Amino acid sequence: MRVGVLTGGGDCPGLNAVIRAVVRKGNKDYGYEFVGFRDGWRGPLEGDTMPLDRAAVSGILPRGGTILGSSRTNLMKIDGGVERVKDNMAGLGIDALVAIGGEDTLGVATQLTERGVNVIGVPKTIDNDLNATDYTFGFDTAVNIATEAIDRLHTTAESHHRALIVEVMGRHAGWIALHAGMAGGANVILIPERPFDIHQVVAHVESRFKTNYAPIIVVAEGAHPQEGQMELATGETDSFGHVRLGGIGQRLAEEIESRTGKEARSVVLGHVQRGGTPSAFDRVLATRLGVNAAEAVHAGDFGKMVALQGTNIVRVPLAAATEKLKTVPVERYEEAEVFFG
Amino acid sequence: MRVGVLTGGGDCPGLNAVIRAVVRKGNKDYGYEFVGFRDGWRGPLEGDTMPLDRAAVSGILPRGGTILGSSRTNLMKIDGGVERVKDNMAGLGIDALVAIGGEDTLGVATQLTERGVNVIGVPKTIDNDLNATDYTFGFDTAVNIATEAIDRLHTTAESHHRALIVEVMGRHAGWIALHAGMAGGANVILIPERPFDIHQVVAHVESRFKTNYAPIIVVAEGAHPQEGQMELATGETDSFGHVRLGGIGQRLAEEIESRTGKEARSVVLGHVQRGGTPSAFDRVLATRLGVNAAEAVHAGDFGKMVALQGTNIVRVPLAAATEKLKTVPVERYEEAEVFFG
Amino acid sequence: MRVGVLTGGGDCPGLNAVIRAVVRKGNKDYGYEFVGFRDGWRGPLEGDTMPLDRAAVSGILPRGGTILGSSRTNLMKIDGGVERVKDNMAGLGIDALVAIGGEDTLGVATQLTERGVNVIGVPKTIDNDLNATDYTFGFDTAVNIATEAIDRLHTTAESHHRALIVEVMGRHAGWIALHAGMAGGANVILIPERPFDIHQVVAHVESRFKTNYAPIIVVAEGAHPQEGQMELATGETDSFGHVRLGGIGQRLAEEIESRTGKEARSVVLGHVQRGGTPSAFDRVLATRLGVNAAEAVHAGDFGKMVALQGTNIVRVPLAAATEKLKTVPVERYEEAEVFFG
Amino acid sequence: MRVGVLTGGGDCPGLNAVIRAVVRKGNKDYGYEFVGFRDGWRGPLEGDTMPLDRAAVSGILPRGGTILGSSRTNLMKIDGGVERVKDNMAGLGIDALVAIGGEDTLGVATQLTERGVNVIGVPKTIDNDLNATDYTFGFDTAVNIATEAIDRLHTTAESHHRALIVEVMGRHAGWIALHAGMAGGANVILIPERPFDIHQVVAHVESRFKTNYAPIIVVAEGAHPQEGQMELATGETDSFGHVRLGGIGQRLAEEIESRTGKEARSVVLGHVQRGGTPSAFDRVLATRLGVNAAEAVHAGDFGKMVALQGTNIVRVPLAAATEKLKTVPVERYEEAEVFFG
Repeated sequence: MRVGVLTGGGDCPGLNAVIRAVVRKGNKDYGYEFVGFRDGWRGPLEGDTMPLDRAAVSGILPRGGTILGSSRTNLMKIDGGVERVKDNMAGLGIDALVAIGGEDTLGVATQLTERGVNVIGVPKTIDNDLNATDYTFGFDTAVNIATEAIDRLHTTAESHHRALIVEVMGRHAGWIALHAGMAGGANVILIPERPFDIHQVVAHVESRFKTNYAPIIVVAEGAHPQEGQMELATGETDSFGHVRLGGIGQRLAEEIESRTGKEARSVVLGHVQRGGTPSAFDRVLATRLGVNAAEAVHAGDFGKMVALQGTNIVRVPLAAATEKLKTVPVERYEEAEVFFG
Repeated sequence: MRVGVLTGGGDCPGLNAVIRAVVRKGNKDYGYEFVGFRDGWRGPLEGDTMPLDRAAVSGILPRGGTILGSSRTNLMKIDGGVERVKDNMAGLGIDALVAIGGEDTLGVATQLTERGVNVIGVPKTIDNDLNATDYTFGFDTAVNIATEAIDRLHTTAESHHRALIVEVMGRHAGWIALHAGMAGGANVILIPERPFDIHQVVAHVESRFKTNYAPIIVVAEGAHPQEGQMELATGETDSFGHVRLGGIGQRLAEEIESRTGKEARSVVLGHVQRGGTPSAFDRVLATRLGVNAAEAVHAGDFGKMVALQGTNIVRVPLAAATEKLKTVPVERYEEAEVFFG
Repeated sequence: MRVGVLTGGGDCPGLNAVIRAVVRKGNKDYGYEFVGFRDGWRGPLEGDTMPLDRAAVSGILPRGGTILGSSRTNLMKIDGGVERVKDNMAGLGIDALVAIGGEDTLGVATQLTERGVNVIGVPKTIDNDLNATDYTFGFDTAVNIATEAIDRLHTTAESHHRALIVEVMGRHAGWIALHAGMAGGANVILIPERPFDIHQVVAHVESRFKTNYAPIIVVAEGAHPQEGQMELATGETDSFGHVRLGGIGQRLAEEIESRTGKEARSVVLGHVQRGGTPSAFDRVLATRLGVNAAEAVHAGDFGKMVALQGTNIVRVPLAAATEKLKTVPVERYEEAEVFFG
Repeated sequence: MRVGVLTGGGDCPGLNAVIRAVVRKGNKDYGYEFVGFRDGWRGPLEGDTMPLDRAAVSGILPRGGTILGSSRTNLMKIDGGVERVKDNMAGLGIDALVAIGGEDTLGVATQLTERGVNVIGVPKTIDNDLNATDYTFGFDTAVNIATEAIDRLHTTAESHHRALIVEVMGRHAGWIALHAGMAGGANVILIPERPFDIHQVVAHVESRFKTNYAPIIVVAEGAHPQEGQMELATGETDSFGHVRLGGIGQRLAEEIESRTGKEARSVVLGHVQRGGTPSAFDRVLATRLGVNAAEAVHAGDFGKMVALQGTNIVRVPLAAATEKLKTVPVERYEEAEVFFG
C-alpha cells in the first residue's frame, strides 16, 4: 500500500513529528510505502512529490516547520482540481492520503472524502480553535514562547514604570492570549470572543500602577473594543492581498498613554510564536496523532480525523472538526479575570 | 472565614502558582483570610504559620518550589497528631484547610476528613502517577527539562559513537520516561511497569549503531530487568534512611559496554528535573486548580480533591486519588515502542 | 562610609547583578553602608532613596531590570540640579556615588566629577556601543534572545518559501545585528554603520531562494538604505516625543515582496530583547564590574569607570567611555559577509 | 588547493560552526576544496574521509557535536603514524590540515608541523583551560547550562531546607565551576586549583541555613579536600580504562549530612553540559575562528593556532597553546569568595 502525506496552511511546531510518526508506524507495522506531496494541496494537484522513507524522516522530530513545505492552495477553487488530484493519486499508485492541516485543509479533505478519496485528517492549528480535539499541537509551544516573553517584559516594565502590551496570535479565538496571559501573570487579557471596555482596561492599568507594579496586558491580534470606543486603523493589505497582522497592540499603547499619562509600549510577537523546536507536550501529541493516523489508514477508517480527548487519541468524523470554531468559553475567561488589575 | 494552606511531600514546579491562585480567588470573590502552614503537616501540628495575604503571593507565579516549605512529616504516625491539628486550627480560628500534596499528603487529608476536619485536596506529584486526574502540575516541566537534556545528548552521542543512558525520575510509574523518551526520540524507553529484557535492549543498541546514529536510552529510576538478568547493586541508604536515587542508568551503561564492546555513558538528571520555573502548561493547570480549590471551599464541598479531566477542572472524592497508583497502560508503551531500535 | 547607587537610562539584564555585587563587596570587605537612589538621576535630585542592605539585594542576581528603577532624567538640563544633588548627598551623609548607566548617565557622572562629586561609573548599554570596554552586560543576553528567535524563524521561512526580516535593537551601532545575525546564520545583516544597497540585498535574497533555503535578513533598527534608494516612513513620535522604534524591517519586507514577487514578513523583537534573566556571561561580567566598582570606591579612585578589557576588569577615566561611540569596524562586517547570500 | 579538516578529543558545542566557517570562507574567497577526515587523527591515519562542500556544511551552525566525528586516537603512540598521515595526505592531494582540538590534538599538530606538515590549529576545550586564548568555544554554553541548573536547584533546596551540591566539569581547571557558580549565586565554589578546607565549607553551609536560604555548592569534578581531610573513593575505571567521572559531589553531600545533621543532595551534570546547540557567544567565536583559520591557510602561516585575545582573533604559535594549562588565577577566585556563605 502506498500512502501520500501532505501539510497545509500555516506552519506549526510538531508537523515534522506527525510526518515522522505516520511513516515510522506505517513502515514498521504495516509495510506501507509513503510519498510526500509538496506544499499542501499544490502537491497532489500538480503531482509534485518527494521520497518519504525512514531516512527522509530521520532527525526531524525536534525540528519546527515541515519538510514537505506548505501553502494555502485551495483545491476547491480550482476547476477540475479534485479530478486532477484523483488522477495524480492513481498515476502514482497512491491508495490513501494523510492530510495534516487546519480548517481549510480539513474542509478540502472532507469534500475529497465525499468524492471517494481515502483520506485521514490530522488537526493542526496554532490557535487551538479546531473543534472536536482538546488541543492541537503547536499551541503549547506558542504559549510557552509567549509566556517566556511576558516573563521578560515584567522586569523591563517595572524598571521603567511603564505599561507593556503584548500582542499574540489569535484572530478568531483567544486561546493563546488566555493561556499565556494566565501563565505570565498578565493584569489584563483581551480576546476576540469578548469586545473589551477601554475604560475598564484603563482602570486595571491605573490600579496596577498604584501598587508599584507595572501592568502587562496580553491582547490577541483579533481582540477589539466595544463598539464606538476606539478608532482602529483600517486593515492594510499586503501585496498578496492578506491583511497585515498586528495593530491592536500598538493602538492600545497609544490609547493607554493618552488616557493615563503613563508610558506604554507594545510588542508584537508575530512569527516567532510559530517557528522552532516544539515543546515536549507538542512532540508527544504530534507523535501520538501520527501513529494513530497510520492505524486509521490500516483500519480503512477513512473520512475521519484523529483527535485528542482527555488523554486518549480517538477518531472523529472529518466534518466534526470544521463545523464550528472552538472559542474560549465564558467560564475560562472568568477564571482568568480573577487576576486582573 | 479563615483558611489554612499547606504543601507536603517533594517539591514540584507549580506549587507557588496554586498557593497564589487559592489566595487571590478567596480574597477577591469571598473575602477569605488565609494562613500559611509551614513545612507540610509539621505546620498545623506545631501551629507554625506565616502570613498569606496578597502581598505574600505577589510575584511567586513563575517561581519553582514552595514559599510555605515542605516536609515529609506523617501526621498519622504521631500520637495524638490529629487532635493537635484540630486544636491548633481551632486556636487560630481556621475553618478549612487546602492541602496540596501527593499520595501521603492526600492520604492524611482523607483521614482528617473522616475525623471532621474541612479539607480540600490539590493533587501534586511530579511523577504524574496520581489517580483521578489526567495530569498533575510539575510533570510537564520535568518532561520538558528531560527532553531538552536528551536533545543535547544526541549530538554528543553521535560524535563519539557512544550509547548514552539518561536516568529520569519515576520509581513506581514511568510517565516521565515515556513522555520525555517519546519527545526526545529515544531508541529505547525502560519503565518500572515492564521489567526489561537486557538482550532486547542490547539488540536495539546494536541495530542503532549500524545505522550510524548513536543510541539514546531513557530509563526511569525504578525500571528493572527481568528476573535473573542483571545483578543490581543493593540499594544504599543515606544517613536519613532514604534509599539513594540513581543506579540503574549506571548499571545499564556497564552492561551495554560489556555486551556490545561500545562505549556507553550514563547521566542521572536528578533534582534538576523538579526545580525552577514551571512550564506554561503547569502554570495554567496549577492556577486553575487553585481557583477551583477556593471555589470548593466556598461551596463547602469538603473531602474532595480538585482534578483535571479533559480540559475541565472537576471535584472527586479525596479517597479516589490515592486508592491506586496511575501507571502507564500497555497501549501507551506500545505507541512508544514503534520508535525503538 | 555611605555610598549611593543609581541606575540610569534604558534597563539591561545585569543591572541587579551589579547592584548586588557592589553592596556585597562593600559590606563584607569595607563595612560600607549603601543607599539606593530611585529612578536614575531623579533619585539624588529629589533625595528619593531606598534601603540597600544585604537583605535588599538577596535573590536579585538572576532577575532582569533594576530594583532601583530607572529614568532618563537629565540632571544637566535642570537649573541648579548639580547643587541639589550635592546638597542631598551631604544631607544623607553620602560620600560617594556608584552610577550605573550609558552615555547620558556617564556623561552626567563626568561633569559631577569635575564639580567635586566622588563618582565611580559602571558602563551599561544593551547596544554594546560604549567605548573603552570590550563588552557591556546585557548585550550577550540580547544577542542570545535574538539568536533564538532567528533559529525559530528559519523553519517557518523554509516551510512557506518566504523571506523573513528580523529587526533588532541598535540605533547607532549594529553590534546586536552583527552577532545575532552571525550566530543565527542570517543571509544578510544590515547595520547603521553601512548604508545598504537594496539591489544587493535583493540579489542575496534571490540567490537564497534558488538553493531552496529561505532567506533570513537581520536588520538593526537604525540601518538605512543608500541615499535615494528606498522611501522611508518619516519617524513618528509618540506622546512623549520619542521616535517610535521599528519601521525598517517592515519597509524591507514590502520592498523585497515587490522586487522579488516572493512573500516576505518582518518581526520586530523590541522590548523582549532587554528584559528577563541575564545570560551567565552577563551575570559574571556584571558581578565582576560591581565588585571592582566597590574596590574603586575604596581606593578613592574617583572619576573612573570600571571596564572589561580582555579578561580583566580595569579602570579608565569616565570621559573615555563617552568621547566617541564604539561602532562595528569594517573587518568585523567583512567576516560576517562571508556568509551572505 | 585541497585542505583537510578534522576534530579531535571530547566534543564541544561550536565544532560544527568552525567546520562550516572554514569551508565557507575557503570556498568563497580562495576557491579551496575541503575534505573531512573522520574521527580525529584516525581519519588521516587510515585515509577515512567524507565530502566537505557547501552542501555538507549547510544547516550545521546551530547543531552540537561534530559532523566529522571524533576520537582520542593518539597519532604519536602509533608506530609510523606520522608517515602514514603524510602518505595519505599526499595520496589525496591534500596540501594543508586544519586541526580542531584540545591539548592532545594540538600537541600532535605541533609535532606534525615540526615534521613538515602544513597545519593550522583551532583551540577547543569545554574546560577553557587552553593557554594563549582568552576563551574557547563550548565553554560559554557549558556555563549557561550549569547556571540554568543551579537556578533550578535554588528553589528545590529552599523548599526542603536542604544543601544541594552541583558537580560540574573541570578535572584540572575550575573555570566552569567559577563562572557557573558566580552566575548562579552559589554559596561555595570548589575548584581543583585550590584544595578546600571541609571545615570552612561546613561553616558556610551552616551560616547559610541560619539565614533561611538553602546552600548551593558548586564543585568542579577535579576539586579535592586538603590533605587528610576526607576519605575519597579510589577512582573506579570503566571497561575502557578511563577513570569514571563523578564522585566528589556525592562525597561532599555525605560529609555535609554527617557534619551538619541537615539533608544534602548532589547532582552530577555530566554529559548534558557538552551537548546540544551552542550559545550565541560560542557560535560567533567558533565562526570567527573558522574564518580566520582559512585566512591563515591562505597566508601559508602554518604551525599557528588561531586564538581570541580581547575582541580580536590572532595567530599564535601552536606550541604556545599547550605549553601550560590555563588555570584560575587567585584574584578571580577571590572575586568569587565575596559571595561565599
